[in-house]
Amino acid sequence: MIGYITMNMVILTESDAVGVNTYRLFDRRAEHIRSVLKLGEGDTLEVGLLDGPQGRALIKSVTGDSVELVCNRLREIPVVRPAIDLICALPRPQTLKKVLLTSAMMGVRSLHLIRANRVEKSYFQSPLIEPENQMPYLIDGLSQGRLTHLPEVHIHDRFRPFFEDRLGSLAGSCGGLILRLLCSDDDANSLSTVFDPHANCVTMAIGPEGGWVPFEIELMQSLGFRPFTLGRWTLRVEHAVTAALSQIELLRIMKNGLS
Amino acid sequence: MIGYITMNMVILTESDAVGVNTYRLFDRRAEHIRSVLKLGEGDTLEVGLLDGPQGRALIKSVTGDSVELVCNRLREIPVVRPAIDLICALPRPQTLKKVLLTSAMMGVRSLHLIRANRVEKSYFQSPLIEPENQMPYLIDGLSQGRLTHLPEVHIHDRFRPFFEDRLGSLAGSCGGLILRLLCSDDDANSLSTVFDPHANCVTMAIGPEGGWVPFEIELMQSLGFRPFTLGRWTLRVEHAVTAALSQIELLRIMKNGLS
Repeated sequence: MIGYITMNMVILTESDAVGVNTYRLFDRRAEHIRSVLKLGEGDTLEVGLLDGPQGRALIKSVTGDSVELVCNRLREIPVVRPAIDLICALPRPQTLKKVLLTSAMMGVRSLHLIRANRVEKSYFQSPLIEPENQMPYLIDGLSQGRLTHLPEVHIHDRFRPFFEDRLGSLAGSCGGLILRLLCSDDDANSLSTVFDPHANCVTMAIGPEGGWVPFEIELMQSLGFRPFTLGRWTLRVEHAVTAALSQIELLRIMKNGLS
Repeated sequence: MIGYITMNMVILTESDAVGVNTYRLFDRRAEHIRSVLKLGEGDTLEVGLLDGPQGRALIKSVTGDSVELVCNRLREIPVVRPAIDLICALPRPQTLKKVLLTSAMMGVRSLHLIRANRVEKSYFQSPLIEPENQMPYLIDGLSQGRLTHLPEVHIHDRFRPFFEDRLGSLAGSCGGLILRLLCSDDDANSLSTVFDPHANCVTMAIGPEGGWVPFEIELMQSLGFRPFTLGRWTLRVEHAVTAALSQIELLRIMKNGLS
């Protein structure tokens, strides 16, 4: 369960391909394979193709600056239900890095970073708003969590239009029962009382530092978001994301009788 | 549930006392009250006395460099069961800071940082091994989580003696049923299948990056530690701590019917 701080799985992309099922790496992934994992020709390692299948690769060659891999038997891992669509009030950039990594690591399907009353406007000017600047944190998260599917990340700089205009299309992509949850501390309900084991998708909203304002809570509740508490503490945004996804995972496993 | 990044509750210590129920602050807490919370004479705020009661304080005076508070009605919050004693393979210093903060924020009773095969020896030379260097992270955690009781932090630089000699005294302080858990990814059991709702104490072990070695797992299992998985992902140590404490909290609330 606990892995090395980087690269439990090396993420490959189509641009690394140099032939059928063959990939050549030059960057820090090659360095990691050589210097941290200390692997050489003939060894195998865990890899995943970005947004694709995963499995073990064979090291075909190692040179001073590159590693060539052959991956003949990658497979798609089964889709896990419920899919999680996470709505987060846009946090400060240092926190956003953690939320991006955690979302990828824990298999979130989409992450919607929204404006809210207690979100500082300046956060929308952060370089992290740009997809290319988010990518390193997302890839690190996939690599850590042994997953390959990138969360879709969307930025919404207005609160009400997101809920009134965009939430519907999110629901449209679900193909089954949707559960809407609102992480809160004003309510004594635990996640177990509002969780629906038949949900195909969970849309979960996590507030800004300082919390949602009453208007925001009322609007979400009018759209069917059900408030729940993670526990007796007051958590930071990054811990709330990890805590909420962990509790959903526990209820998911319990429901599926995997345990 | 989501609070300001610092000081949901201002932590006071006996050394701040200047009279009966009266405390004078000069440091960043005074600055926080003046500049971030923007409070003045006659306002109230949430405070907690370190290792003691908590509640609201009245601001008696604000000067250029100090804030004086009167706290007449602080109260002890009820003890929560199970108490959590966390055993962590000593992580790298940057991770240790997060583990200290999270442990305090989430109400861990004691934190045992132990040597394991995959713990780098150099970690035991970190300045963070010294209690006075741990304190800022613990205080930040209490302040964030609205708790006042510091986790006891112990360092154990040998693996087997900790389990053979010290674990017993930990158990002796429990006063009830003890549940021993081992966070693992080699086992399909979820926490719900190994959790005992009657436990008065939970002793939970979380491994190093790279995991425990077989000898370590065998020794812990021989002492009654029951392996469980947090879910389908591979998490970093700091996320594993948050995830495990969150799942225990969910099962605790479910059992108590608080929800």
